[in-house]
Amino acid sequence: MHRAYAAIEAGFDTFLDDLVMLTEVPAPPFGEAARGEAFKTRIAACGMDTVTVDAVGNVVALRRGTGRGKVAIAAHLDTVFPAGTDVTVRREGTRLYAPGVGDDTRGLAAILAVARALDAADVRTEADLLVVADVGEEGLGDLRGVRHLFEAGEHAGTIDAFFSFDGSDMEKLVTGGIGSLRYRIVFRGPGGHSFIDFGRVNPSNALGAVVAELARTPVPDEPRTTFSSSVLGGGSSINAIPEEVFVEVDLRSADPGPLADLDARLRRLVAQAVEEENGRARLSAGMLTAEIVPIGNRPAAPLRENGRVIDETRAAHLEFGFSPRVTASSTDANVPLALDIPSVTLGSGPGAGGVHTLGEWVDVERDGSVRALKAGLSAVLRVAGIAAG
Amino acid sequence: MHRAYAAIEAGFDTFLDDLVMLTEVPAPPFGEAARGEAFKTRIAACGMDTVTVDAVGNVVALRRGTGRGKVAIAAHLDTVFPAGTDVTVRREGTRLYAPGVGDDTRGLAAILAVARALDAADVRTEADLLVVADVGEEGLGDLRGVRHLFEAGEHAGTIDAFFSFDGSDMEKLVTGGIGSLRYRIVFRGPGGHSFIDFGRVNPSNALGAVVAELARTPVPDEPRTTFSSSVLGGGSSINAIPEEVFVEVDLRSADPGPLADLDARLRRLVAQAVEEENGRARLSAGMLTAEIVPIGNRPAAPLRENGRVIDETRAAHLEFGFSPRVTASSTDANVPLALDIPSVTLGSGPGAGGVHTLGEWVDVERDGSVRALKAGLSAVLRVAGIAAG
Repeated sequence: MHRAYAAIEAGFDTFLDDLVMLTEVPAPPFGEAARGEAFKTRIAACGMDTVTVDAVGNVVALRRGTGRGKVAIAAHLDTVFPAGTDVTVRREGTRLYAPGVGDDTRGLAAILAVARALDAADVRTEADLLVVADVGEEGLGDLRGVRHLFEAGEHAGTIDAFFSFDGSDMEKLVTGGIGSLRYRIVFRGPGGHSFIDFGRVNPSNALGAVVAELARTPVPDEPRTTFSSSVLGGGSSINAIPEEVFVEVDLRSADPGPLADLDARLRRLVAQAVEEENGRARLSAGMLTAEIVPIGNRPAAPLRENGRVIDETRAAHLEFGFSPRVTASSTDANVPLALDIPSVTLGSGPGAGGVHTLGEWVDVERDGSVRALKAGLSAVLRVAGIAAG
Repeated sequence: MHRAYAAIEAGFDTFLDDLVMLTEVPAPPFGEAARGEAFKTRIAACGMDTVTVDAVGNVVALRRGTGRGKVAIAAHLDTVFPAGTDVTVRREGTRLYAPGVGDDTRGLAAILAVARALDAADVRTEADLLVVADVGEEGLGDLRGVRHLFEAGEHAGTIDAFFSFDGSDMEKLVTGGIGSLRYRIVFRGPGGHSFIDFGRVNPSNALGAVVAELARTPVPDEPRTTFSSSVLGGGSSINAIPEEVFVEVDLRSADPGPLADLDARLRRLVAQAVEEENGRARLSAGMLTAEIVPIGNRPAAPLRENGRVIDETRAAHLEFGFSPRVTASSTDANVPLALDIPSVTLGSGPGAGGVHTLGEWVDVERDGSVRALKAGLSAVLRVAGIAAG
């Protein structure tokens, strides 16, 4: 254990090199392959037994343990920034500035640091260790990387615990998954002239009714449950009844029950709005229809307060001066948490800002950064177990 | 009178030349100056007393009468087609094809034909004749040409009757004005994260309530009164509560009363929706506001069945084989009709299609075209009166 901690200290400059190098390989949504290759080269040098790229683009490296069980440690390859974004890293004092440097490139560098320290210190774990750089965590990626890992990939059904290194708040452990359902609801009709064809169905009317009624939906404060009608569009001219309009709706909850209730209500509101508009219109030119197009679906998982993985992770943090509390968020851990696989999303280091903006930065001040990496390593070793040497 | 009719026949080829030439001078919305100059050159050759271009770009030519009164004959310079549209005229059989050839370039050629025939036949009218090629009839032009003519220009307050040569249905006389009010309603709030900031005002919610309630508004069938929520937009991300959304709303009626009622209801609905959303939200980050931005305002005027100008115009049409009925529409005549100035919008010739499309055409078959021009000339002379020769 102490040799491994010493290896974290000795490897800190390599951690920083990894962080800068990986940040400067663009990884836009659905374009993570180049960064995956860069990660693969580095993890392959950490004494893994196998390193593969799976069907969806996750880099998956296996380090065999001496006994039973399998613990996965993951960070996500993708950033929110589109192709063409300048991802050059700039250093000012102890800060590194670049889009994506914190979310989640520092997580990628952290799991490399953990794997490299185990290799350098020649520490064997009891459980197998699976180091995963996954795709599709952000936005429309819709957790497709971890979804494949747990539902379809080679290791599906065999992972006993999951750590996601993602975030910069060392005082928080994410042990609940905020679930979300996202839809683009498209309303269509025959269109027509606003004056001459008045009386035909108007898709905007149904859109308005859905949005207005959704806004009147009571939702619980605990577990926190929310809705938002956001991007709207459609219609071609002030002179014309629209042929097509759409609204994008985001539903979220920390608990699957209220999320399912909200989902059912939204579907009922769409059906009612279509019925109302068709009921008052002259239908000879055509009826109103609505299509509910799913554009996101992240499973909710109730917040866990305790359990072996949570308790050991908390203890590991306390060991290095952090006092985290548990919270729910939307991370890669949503998928295993919803499958009842003990999972925690933990910080990759203290201090960051401007997440999801071009001004994103992380603080790589040595003391805090090293303590965070040691806490992560400690959590992994506590859960995976150290083989008698 | 007969000499003037003979001049229409003799000048038919010149009418066609005018039509082709004027069609080929582009006149996009708010870009009518070049076509105005071309019209000015031609009307100046028709023996007018004065020819001027007024402050908004209308070409206004005065031909003095021998007695009292003033009769205006108008057509509009502007087309709906943007700058850069190919306006080359193509002839197939008796059809001329080109964007804008019918709406309203044939009207411009018709008022030139009437003026030229009076000059050629040396017919003096009792009333002054005002020949007007006006700007801004279409769309966002919002009738600004005739508005200036009747409300601010040199001849404001002195015009006793108004003819608009616009349209291709010789079986219709427009004697009522469909009024319209058009708004872009913009809803604004502080925005925020869809999950973290849930509870803040969401501008989409208020937009939805306005559109849904407007859709439930009872409106009379007679006078025909309509509303349409058309172009929608706003919101930046499914992740974010929008900072700004908008909807464009079109209200119309053949009568000023129901139009004013509908307008008042819309304003009430906007106020109520803002109040509802602010009433249920957490306002610490900011309140919802709504701005009702006018983007169109055409006065309504009730349909007239009879009156000297209508009766004489009908008689003139019957004289040349047309049997028009009266109807309401949205034309340049809305403005004088709303001021109680006897006004008729009449066809510039029979046969046209593809109005407001790139495939627009008019039929210039000689017999029907000549009868239509004679009917127009006859209507003008019946109303203006022929001075004893």
